Amino acid sequence: MVDLVVYGSVAFDSIKTPFGSTEKTLGGSGTYASIAASFFSKPGVVSAVGSDFPGKEMDFFKEKGVDLKGLDLKQGFKEKGVDLKGLDLKQGKTFHWKGEYGFDINVAKTLDVQFNVLKDFKPELPEEYKEAKFLLLGNNDPEMQLEILKQMKTRPKLVIADTMNYYIENKKDKVLEVVKEADICLMNDGEARQLFGTPNLMKASKEILKLNSDLAIIKKGEHGAILSTASGSFVAPAYPLENVVDPTGCGDCFAGAMMGFLAKEGNVNEALMRKAIIFGSTVASFNAEGLGTERLRTLEMKEIEKRFEEFKDIVKF
Amino acid sequence: MVDLVVYGSVAFDSIKTPFGSTEKTLGGSGTYASIAASFFSKPGVVSAVGSDFPGKEMDFFKEKGVDLKGLDLKQGFKEKGVDLKGLDLKQGKTFHWKGEYGFDINVAKTLDVQFNVLKDFKPELPEEYKEAKFLLLGNNDPEMQLEILKQMKTRPKLVIADTMNYYIENKKDKVLEVVKEADICLMNDGEARQLFGTPNLMKASKEILKLNSDLAIIKKGEHGAILSTASGSFVAPAYPLENVVDPTGCGDCFAGAMMGFLAKEGNVNEALMRKAIIFGSTVASFNAEGLGTERLRTLEMKEIEKRFEEFKDIVKF
Repeated sequence: MVDLVVYGSVAFDSIKTPFGSTEKTLGGSGTYASIAASFFSKPGVVSAVGSDFPGKEMDFFKEKGVDLKGLDLKQGFKEKGVDLKGLDLKQGKTFHWKGEYGFDINVAKTLDVQFNVLKDFKPELPEEYKEAKFLLLGNNDPEMQLEILKQMKTRPKLVIADTMNYYIENKKDKVLEVVKEADICLMNDGEARQLFGTPNLMKASKEILKLNSDLAIIKKGEHGAILSTASGSFVAPAYPLENVVDPTGCGDCFAGAMMGFLAKEGNVNEALMRKAIIFGSTVASFNAEGLGTERLRTLEMKEIEKRFEEFKDIVKF
Repeated sequence: MVDLVVYGSVAFDSIKTPFGSTEKTLGGSGTYASIAASFFSKPGVVSAVGSDFPGKEMDFFKEKGVDLKGLDLKQGFKEKGVDLKGLDLKQGKTFHWKGEYGFDINVAKTLDVQFNVLKDFKPELPEEYKEAKFLLLGNNDPEMQLEILKQMKTRPKLVIADTMNYYIENKKDKVLEVVKEADICLMNDGEARQLFGTPNLMKASKEILKLNSDLAIIKKGEHGAILSTASGSFVAPAYPLENVVDPTGCGDCFAGAMMGFLAKEGNVNEALMRKAIIFGSTVASFNAEGLGTERLRTLEMKEIEKRFEEFKDIVKF
């Protein structure tokens, strides 16, 4: 039984940063978020991959305790199977993102996106996922996020949705519906400014709170995150990292670790949310230290706990 | 006897922000820094003003307890006095900066600068200033900053120097000399990246520490500040402000309040420095709430203390 459902892409990434490059390595928001969550609880990931997806990566998910019943392999299998006729062969391939980071390593330049099997992917939640208490809707088409939420049999205790600028530009109404339906809608500073038409993040946070949310979280990348409630704010620093190798997936690790911690606690309140944000920042900071998922593969819980404690000294005055 | 010497401009500012505008209002780095310091200790400001500088602003400084023996009035007086012949009349006017802030209120666009009496200003420290224990060198020509430091009879306990991108571009060697000579060289994130050729602020901090500094402080505006030492980092948030009216002078208030607090304590160590940074952020946040020096004029110490305490809750997890 999973205690956290993560809806997000499982993908191949080709990444170039000033410190290294890698071709067709494991990536995707669902990957980063579920692996980050797996340090704390039992997540299941909902996505689709093609027949080109390697078994050793399946094993990596399983080793980390990520449930794969929600990982749709059909389209890949179709490609190998009998009813191949009429099928677009390209559809049998795993989603592929190609991107590059320059001098300012915080800004990704997307060079190519091939949606492949995710193009018309209509996820169907496995029965046991429909009663999970925690749901993370990774950044994706807001209509699909709402669809997943509709498939849940019981309203989860906590629904967090991520968003991205593409959908704010093209489906703003639906994004606002997600902000309303989810308990927390994660966005970065640029997205918050864009969605609410204000450069001031505290004003944007107030707008989020008005939309039926008790909590608003705005991610600021290397500058940390701000949690706002009706009663005040929590300003979380990012871990001061000297060696940022590759920021790909850091936002997803932040969301995944945060949700993983809360799912482990089985409860949600402001005090736990503050801790969850620091655990999110912690796992995200480790992730940035390696190319792709490299650092997550060797990461141990005791390292996470040590850095979490360091955060206390970092903000003390 | 002053316990803190502030070298920086006393000026007229004409400011336009999306929330209001003001013409020829009191401004300048020396003004903001010394007024901010005055809540904690007895600062003296070193600058020059013209004959157009109003007596009521002199009174404002005096009310706040800012010593004006270092404020050079000669050039203004000359304009009124006997030996007027041969004098460029424009030289008798106070420094004037005109700037505008747009949608992103964190970025100032300079529309006009008239140096006037500050053009060839060669400050001479009053005798009693030469033994002050604390010295704040506001952002200015690095050669002038070094000159002021040379005029000190005894090496102050703490010298903090501010810098700005113009001098990094045009007098980089001298800026690096200031970083070496001062105990702490304040710079914002953009300046640190520019001076050390790295986008990573922790790498830039390490470079600063190598240049004979025990402490490095990088200001990040609305994202707070980072203090680095050989043993670790303090990441200070900015106060989460919903109503930023005018950020002019916030960096100077940060430096001034920080120095004012340390001068009051009469000592420097990492624990005090962390508190000093939070007091700096506190006064800067109040300053941003009004046009020009408006908010500083009504600000009371008990408000500063209350917000300082709020900061503790803001970072608690």
